[in-house]
Amino acid sequence: MIKLTTELDEFITPAELEQKKTEAQKLIPRLKTDDMTGWVDQPIDYDKEEFARIKQAAQKINSDSDILVCIGIGGSYLGHKAVIEALGNGPDTLIIFAGNNLGPAMLNKKLELLEGKDWSINVISKSGTTTEPAIAFRIFKQKLIEKYGEEEAFKRIYATTDANKGALHDESVKNGYEMFVVPDNIGGRYSVLTAVGLLPIAVAGIDIDILMAGAAEEREQLISSDDNDALKYAAIRNCLLDKGFDIEILSTFEPELRYFSEWWTQLFGESEGKDHKGIYPSYVVNTTSLHSMGQYIQDGRRNLFETVLSFKKSTADYTIPHDPVDADGLNFLAGKELSFVNEKALEATVAAHRSGGTPVILLEIPTLSAKSLGALIYFFEYAVGISGMLLGVNPYDQPGVEEYKNNMFRLLGKPGY
Amino acid sequence: MIKLTTELDEFITPAELEQKKTEAQKLIPRLKTDDMTGWVDQPIDYDKEEFARIKQAAQKINSDSDILVCIGIGGSYLGHKAVIEALGNGPDTLIIFAGNNLGPAMLNKKLELLEGKDWSINVISKSGTTTEPAIAFRIFKQKLIEKYGEEEAFKRIYATTDANKGALHDESVKNGYEMFVVPDNIGGRYSVLTAVGLLPIAVAGIDIDILMAGAAEEREQLISSDDNDALKYAAIRNCLLDKGFDIEILSTFEPELRYFSEWWTQLFGESEGKDHKGIYPSYVVNTTSLHSMGQYIQDGRRNLFETVLSFKKSTADYTIPHDPVDADGLNFLAGKELSFVNEKALEATVAAHRSGGTPVILLEIPTLSAKSLGALIYFFEYAVGISGMLLGVNPYDQPGVEEYKNNMFRLLGKPGY
Repeated sequence: MIKLTTELDEFITPAELEQKKTEAQKLIPRLKTDDMTGWVDQPIDYDKEEFARIKQAAQKINSDSDILVCIGIGGSYLGHKAVIEALGNGPDTLIIFAGNNLGPAMLNKKLELLEGKDWSINVISKSGTTTEPAIAFRIFKQKLIEKYGEEEAFKRIYATTDANKGALHDESVKNGYEMFVVPDNIGGRYSVLTAVGLLPIAVAGIDIDILMAGAAEEREQLISSDDNDALKYAAIRNCLLDKGFDIEILSTFEPELRYFSEWWTQLFGESEGKDHKGIYPSYVVNTTSLHSMGQYIQDGRRNLFETVLSFKKSTADYTIPHDPVDADGLNFLAGKELSFVNEKALEATVAAHRSGGTPVILLEIPTLSAKSLGALIYFFEYAVGISGMLLGVNPYDQPGVEEYKNNMFRLLGKPGY
Repeated sequence: MIKLTTELDEFITPAELEQKKTEAQKLIPRLKTDDMTGWVDQPIDYDKEEFARIKQAAQKINSDSDILVCIGIGGSYLGHKAVIEALGNGPDTLIIFAGNNLGPAMLNKKLELLEGKDWSINVISKSGTTTEPAIAFRIFKQKLIEKYGEEEAFKRIYATTDANKGALHDESVKNGYEMFVVPDNIGGRYSVLTAVGLLPIAVAGIDIDILMAGAAEEREQLISSDDNDALKYAAIRNCLLDKGFDIEILSTFEPELRYFSEWWTQLFGESEGKDHKGIYPSYVVNTTSLHSMGQYIQDGRRNLFETVLSFKKSTADYTIPHDPVDADGLNFLAGKELSFVNEKALEATVAAHRSGGTPVILLEIPTLSAKSLGALIYFFEYAVGISGMLLGVNPYDQPGVEEYKNNMFRLLGKPGY
């Protein structure tokens, strides 16, 4: 579903690209044999019973909650935040996010939002002991019990956690929270298509069957050929890195994709940024950023390349009105759609950046929908798996994050650290 | 007010830093003589009559509008968005932003927000012909006239534009909009302390006298000594760039500072990113990003440095509750404030990143307030002025953005392009 359309001959010779692709193709079997590659078959090989329970839970939450407080950080936050922002939160239950920072002002604002509302909690944490979500869960659980009493409150807590062990698992069993599973063989940043992301996404009114179908369709396309576009994307990135292009900018023209870009940044940065290696992932949201970072991309240091997401069709639109006075001289656009101007902005940008010496990779995606977003998620997961292996790192661990977590426990004076 | 506390001896020798500072000190006179340096004296040398009118207009808008639609892009958007998000939107009038992208779905959402509400427009554009804000102004102006009729609608439009010429200037004179000035000698990204930023900031209920006083105090501190911290910051950045550290990450631990970081990114990226030069500006919002980009910063390619904003006192707070069960093992934090944990997270991060080989520059700021934010804005403007000159570029132009604007007019078929 996702198509890579790019000419980069100016920067990479066809022979260089072929060689890198050959290297990459040899790594494909490791997608089946390496640890933590559960994401590869997840779009088809998921727990159907749990999937049905997710949909039931979402229905219940939609019927009894104005707000669902999703507590989680990192991979237990960004994926569903991205999908919900991209596709919009339906009218039944508003999803809000907590436990992803330590700002007191933000927390107070969220608590205010809940006043007079019916609400539930989805706490998402494999261990249950990560500081930020654990603190938030304490606070919101206390409020929920204050409002509903313990018995009803416990029926309004949904825990997505380890299947067998850990602090949150044990508490959930004891208190009878409905439980969903963070799989053992899928890392946080690859987990949006598991219960981690699917429950909040379903509660937001997004069709998770279609999201999964999009991912499954893309998976089928990628695994059926070793000359696929995700592998080519991985190969191009590494060729560019070899030439000194060590910053990648994900460039979108849909303002709804800010958090999708944040998700992408985590996926690539955390998968590749280790052992003193990695392409630095960054993003811009256009056309906003064209009037800020656009200058740097056009004419700053020539060590960056740009990956542009191009959606072929806009879902919503607005016709530009005629103005009898025409002070701004824009009547030549009157009667045209806003999406037409946005499309031209994308074309103008790609042309300008290319002529400025920035390698531009174009990814074409159909309409911004649950189906194509599922496909795009899978495309990037596959690409970063291949790309990390090409780079010679383990795309599935995050030793640096663990270091910060431990440092923090020490400084906070946690017993045992 | 802003204090730089840093030891970077591991990366820069004292002699190297002294030499760069000496170079920088020689450039200080150009802050008075170069074109477009109106920002230097703006905190004290502003138009007092206009400033009083801004406060009156804000009062009127607060009394007759639930919502103020601010139309602008780039420097006519990011500064006031940053300040309002950082300090909070007061209860009288909600500020919403339009004309900063071409997304139809976002536009439709904003129009929905206005239904049944009283509202006004602040359109901010020096020329009045930049595509995005000009289109948005057409659309919102039409809606405003539909709601109030032409006479009343024109009283609800506030135009911040060129003092003497241009499409928006001429239309404003003709229709009798109240007008404020985008000064000729202050570029967009340096304009937040002019009417460009001050009107929306005042409407949001933020004390612009205090904001300006903070900037004035910082200005006094910086111009009274050529051995000041903003100059030192500029010198350190350029020393690090000489050593191959060509990515700078602004790191905040206040989630309210996401758009302040966007403003900073524009200020530095657009001022320095030209002539194939520049430090690539990026940002993280912690502790959220510690669970995503934290991995890269800790252990990825060693070509980045981090500038951490450390606020000495939190304005809001929340006490972590005791939990009789203590499943998460966090009772050792019970009774402590959330801001205490946030402070420790900052310390843990700085220690971890330094030990990972990332140069960390620490900027200490008092409480997050209008006063210190005014100071911080001035600090960064001064620093980037010096830093751009050290780099050998013009910190005040943006030829690359103009290129995109023209390319787009051509592709859209604008007459004359």
